[in-house]
Amino acid sequence: MDPVKYLLPDSELPTSWYNLQADFKDPMPPTLHPGTGKPVTMDDLAPLFAKGLIEQEVSTERWIEIPKEVREVLKQWRCTPLYRARRLEKMLQTPAKIYYKHEGVSPVGSHKPNSAVPQVFYNKIEGIKRITTETGAGQWGASLAMACSFFGLESIVYMVRVSYDQKPYRRALMEIFGGKCIPSPSPYTEAGRVLLAENPDTSGSLGMAISEAVEDALSRDDSHYCLGSVLNHVMIHQSVIGQEALKQMEMANDYPDVIIGCTGGGSNFAGLTFPFIGEYLRGGKKTRVLAVEPTACPSLTKGAYKYDFGDTSHLTPLCKMNTLGSTFMPAGFHAGGLRYHGMAPMVSHAMSQGLVEACSYNQLDTFAAGVQFTKAEGIVPAPESCHAVCSAIREAERCREEGKSETILFNLSGHGHFDMGSYIKYLANELVDYDYPEEEIAMALSGLPRFGNE
Amino acid sequence: MDPVKYLLPDSELPTSWYNLQADFKDPMPPTLHPGTGKPVTMDDLAPLFAKGLIEQEVSTERWIEIPKEVREVLKQWRCTPLYRARRLEKMLQTPAKIYYKHEGVSPVGSHKPNSAVPQVFYNKIEGIKRITTETGAGQWGASLAMACSFFGLESIVYMVRVSYDQKPYRRALMEIFGGKCIPSPSPYTEAGRVLLAENPDTSGSLGMAISEAVEDALSRDDSHYCLGSVLNHVMIHQSVIGQEALKQMEMANDYPDVIIGCTGGGSNFAGLTFPFIGEYLRGGKKTRVLAVEPTACPSLTKGAYKYDFGDTSHLTPLCKMNTLGSTFMPAGFHAGGLRYHGMAPMVSHAMSQGLVEACSYNQLDTFAAGVQFTKAEGIVPAPESCHAVCSAIREAERCREEGKSETILFNLSGHGHFDMGSYIKYLANELVDYDYPEEEIAMALSGLPRFGNE
Repeated sequence: MDPVKYLLPDSELPTSWYNLQADFKDPMPPTLHPGTGKPVTMDDLAPLFAKGLIEQEVSTERWIEIPKEVREVLKQWRCTPLYRARRLEKMLQTPAKIYYKHEGVSPVGSHKPNSAVPQVFYNKIEGIKRITTETGAGQWGASLAMACSFFGLESIVYMVRVSYDQKPYRRALMEIFGGKCIPSPSPYTEAGRVLLAENPDTSGSLGMAISEAVEDALSRDDSHYCLGSVLNHVMIHQSVIGQEALKQMEMANDYPDVIIGCTGGGSNFAGLTFPFIGEYLRGGKKTRVLAVEPTACPSLTKGAYKYDFGDTSHLTPLCKMNTLGSTFMPAGFHAGGLRYHGMAPMVSHAMSQGLVEACSYNQLDTFAAGVQFTKAEGIVPAPESCHAVCSAIREAERCREEGKSETILFNLSGHGHFDMGSYIKYLANELVDYDYPEEEIAMALSGLPRFGNE
Repeated sequence: MDPVKYLLPDSELPTSWYNLQADFKDPMPPTLHPGTGKPVTMDDLAPLFAKGLIEQEVSTERWIEIPKEVREVLKQWRCTPLYRARRLEKMLQTPAKIYYKHEGVSPVGSHKPNSAVPQVFYNKIEGIKRITTETGAGQWGASLAMACSFFGLESIVYMVRVSYDQKPYRRALMEIFGGKCIPSPSPYTEAGRVLLAENPDTSGSLGMAISEAVEDALSRDDSHYCLGSVLNHVMIHQSVIGQEALKQMEMANDYPDVIIGCTGGGSNFAGLTFPFIGEYLRGGKKTRVLAVEPTACPSLTKGAYKYDFGDTSHLTPLCKMNTLGSTFMPAGFHAGGLRYHGMAPMVSHAMSQGLVEACSYNQLDTFAAGVQFTKAEGIVPAPESCHAVCSAIREAERCREEGKSETILFNLSGHGHFDMGSYIKYLANELVDYDYPEEEIAMALSGLPRFGNE
């Protein structure tokens, strides 16, 4: 029998996280204090984050040891399987070989626990009792609530209003774990009250929810804030994905010509691709690395590489990143995890260094790809992951047209079991495409902060 | 690190199914033709089932080879992991060791594809183009639709009305696979029309849906019927679960004192436990084998071991089984897969031989157990599986009280991602318990058929 899956034993679970910062040819621009325009210090970040995480945030070490308590939890579902999508290849009649890393096997169904578990762990050992966070589709919020349940902390999740309404099942999952899930913007924070006063019917955004969660954490001594993407330490935590995939591609006696991930804040994309980019930067094979985003929220394909706030209410430091402007309000498409105005500074830097290319697809194409993938492989992808699936299918079709047997690897960052409401709408022809929001982006970009962009 | 999971490589995927009939001390009573009262012949069954499956249905061979095309599909998610529930043990402060086999890792989230894949395969090689079936919660219907999508057959699923309304996400899953999902009773069959005329507001039952699916298959030459539980060949297909678990318990250097599965028709229960029972019957260790059913549909704890029809409209042969009477109408509790009046003849026979004991739990206890399990282990069990979880927790609590370090193994037959609507109702205190339906059972049992019961 030809293998369709490549499994690694527990003993192959990575013992260190990989940090691409160690291998970048040019160093990353610093994060700036929004009041002074000077690089932020560890002390600036201490009210929000655990010290262990801040150290990782600023680290340029290549390998960072994973605590054994974290590995103990991760190994429940890791190493995750790498699959060869043979039935999909056959359906597409492509000479390409399609592999996917299945991060949907985690208990909550996505890659997000890879960072939720260490983030909660570092907070726990520093005596923090309560964690606040934001969530889009709820993949991150559910992961954080799960990690808090495992380690005995309280979790408060500000969930973007449109997703809160679209995805009641994922909301319920957070509540089963004992998490408190609040639709954002909410009346419980100053940031939320201001946003609601400006626009009482707003569908919310990740930028708004971040403002609320940050404000909440800053208001209490027992609380810290956790972020599910964007920050360097999150990219580092997610590197377990690519480290495993490198070994699994070796088991398959193959190596990708193109590696694909969907990008919202960048975490699953970085997780799969950075270890491969690192191989290249240290003298290994160059491979195409493709970031896929929604047409309606195109930070990499249409954004500016500038300093900007991570949140709508301007409570965060300034990061140099691909951004659509912190006040940009994405349309209410169903891939809620991709509704973010910015992009991880590490991913943005990698693109500025020519290590990453980007493309975008509209909503209906991505759901069509998700349905095709499910018919062939049985696994329903999350709406976010449908973007990666769509791109992988397009690449495989290109290979068919060009008669090339390329090797395609993509990250199936999560399953769509809690997003079936979106599929029901898609099957009933109730979903629509969204235009590229050119004017809204231009307006939001006109308000970029002064520091760093002068 | 102490292991929490035991993984088998693809090479350990069973090459044969195990058939407990080979090891029963007393042979099973024959299945009877409902018109003549004589044992059914292979020809009697040919209009409904593929020949390959009928041969398995009547086989008393111990080992039946699994076709390579079936193994090729199964190995996408098999061997499934065996977990040690260390966080649950800690939460319960029990000296017991709790293991669970996680069948929820299949693409549709339960053990059901173990039989859907071979059933569709045997029909395909015999030229059948269209499969009809029934489904309760939709675990089986989704599995059949998936297998039909993989092998290129059409699928028609009669879904019990109450579950059709309760579980729109699983209905959508069938539709993504291209399956046609019809709420039962429906106006499309004679059986359905009669049932609707008697009771237009009926919430339906598995017995009714079976009648419709059987009638549909009999009405067309290109169609066969498939059943997701009850029949001998289904029990045989599910034996991959227990065969793997035997090897995994050996890896853990342990052996269960008690093995637990929930029972509706009996398939996940038989799948896990029969290979262990076989070990005992061939001279191995005796272990307690515990079947867990809902108080509101208690075929093993309160039913009669008699000949009865498998369906409400009396289209099927007569099987000797634990039954509540084929006209018994279970309450609309949320574990839709357990709403069946009968019990697999093999499971019933095993209980009559003293190899199985049974117990029952009411709805609220099972959801409470499911929530507790999720907080500890991260995985949300299907409402059906919550019955097994509930029993495992009770056994672990007994061990705590008795100070015994017993080894408990249960089957987590599926995840509850598509059943979150039920959890939402549970968390909102909108679910209720159901009384043991003593009078309804007595009435339904008063109408048992003459043949076999004289």
